[in-house]
Amino acid sequence: MSSPEQRVRHFQDELEQLKARLLEMGGLAEEQVRLAVKGLVDRDRDLIARALTGDGPLNALHIEVDNRCFTLLALYQPMAVDLRAIVAAVKINTDLERVGDLAINIAEAARQYVGHAPVKKLIDIPRMASIAQCMLRDALDAFVRRDTDLAQHVLDEDDALDALKTQIFRELLTYMLQDPVTIEPALDLILVSRHLERIGDHATNVAEDVIFMVLAKDVRHHSAEGS
Amino acid sequence: MSSPEQRVRHFQDELEQLKARLLEMGGLAEEQVRLAVKGLVDRDRDLIARALTGDGPLNALHIEVDNRCFTLLALYQPMAVDLRAIVAAVKINTDLERVGDLAINIAEAARQYVGHAPVKKLIDIPRMASIAQCMLRDALDAFVRRDTDLAQHVLDEDDALDALKTQIFRELLTYMLQDPVTIEPALDLILVSRHLERIGDHATNVAEDVIFMVLAKDVRHHSAEGS
Repeated sequence: MSSPEQRVRHFQDELEQLKARLLEMGGLAEEQVRLAVKGLVDRDRDLIARALTGDGPLNALHIEVDNRCFTLLALYQPMAVDLRAIVAAVKINTDLERVGDLAINIAEAARQYVGHAPVKKLIDIPRMASIAQCMLRDALDAFVRRDTDLAQHVLDEDDALDALKTQIFRELLTYMLQDPVTIEPALDLILVSRHLERIGDHATNVAEDVIFMVLAKDVRHHSAEGS
Repeated sequence: MSSPEQRVRHFQDELEQLKARLLEMGGLAEEQVRLAVKGLVDRDRDLIARALTGDGPLNALHIEVDNRCFTLLALYQPMAVDLRAIVAAVKINTDLERVGDLAINIAEAARQYVGHAPVKKLIDIPRMASIAQCMLRDALDAFVRRDTDLAQHVLDEDDALDALKTQIFRELLTYMLQDPVTIEPALDLILVSRHLERIGDHATNVAEDVIFMVLAKDVRHHSAEGS
């Protein structure tokens, strides 16, 4: 049998490894998004193909992280902030796996898009992607460092992403109404911007989990608080 | 101090209450989707307004269920299938809350849609909604009854939903190419069908969690199994 001190140290070691895996997943998810968006912007079919099939390592980590969380809960029966950290890790793991799925959705839309003449300079799409990726990175850093200020910053950034999505939609709608040839490729871009918006939503989920983990304070459903 | 037998009984009572809350959430989420789709089909602005603002009870339950899961983990330190059931409940809770968000997204698209002339008879949209709602109900029943056959049935149903989404997209694209007046309302319907597809995805997530909970077998990422 190990001493209580050893158990605490083992648990903290395992928790650090869990965090490292989540950071690794975040890096992979980000890279998948980067590939898909670069494939779209550069009209590069090879990059798009890589983004379409590159989710194996992310999915393997998804299963590993889930298993690590179960093991930690079963072996160490953590309490308070440690328990909240493991439950947060379960949720964050799901969010990161979904970001990988969204990168594939972006790559699928990109594959459609490059079959048509380009609609416009895609300046706003990379800008949306870069905000979403930055939100994701900050949210994971906030998790690892238990930094609620950084988590709050992520929540604030989501408005910028939504505003860009609305602007892109309006602009693309104008093209579609002016020239039917742009309808199909513009639809692809509208879907890409929705996927990027959802990546921002996942970063927001992670940030909310961080705030709950640290403060045990639920920042979701602000408007429902009084009900 | 309570006896081990009492602890087991208390835990099982609490677990039953947790399941009851998740079923209640499922019912609320389904009703929100039903309202939003009926508002769209009947062009009923009152129904749409109710769907837009009716997520308070669902959000309150979301927070309650999360708290119940933490309490169960902290007080009873469950093992094996009980531990997997609580972690599944944490994930299902998130999925149900997102279904409520998607009902609002559908209502937002419906609000846009009724500002335009109707594009077509909306037969396929209610059909998609009914498949998605049925998947959600079956997935929750599978969770409560630990029924992996029913969970597998939910996974199979997802193909029907995807096929309908593709068919709706092609049909709407034809309208858009023929008549620019249909572009804006057709875009609203495309987004609605994507939201309904995502409700099916959440039902699929729940079904996968049920299979993992019962069999401790991961049915996600089939293609990645060999990697």
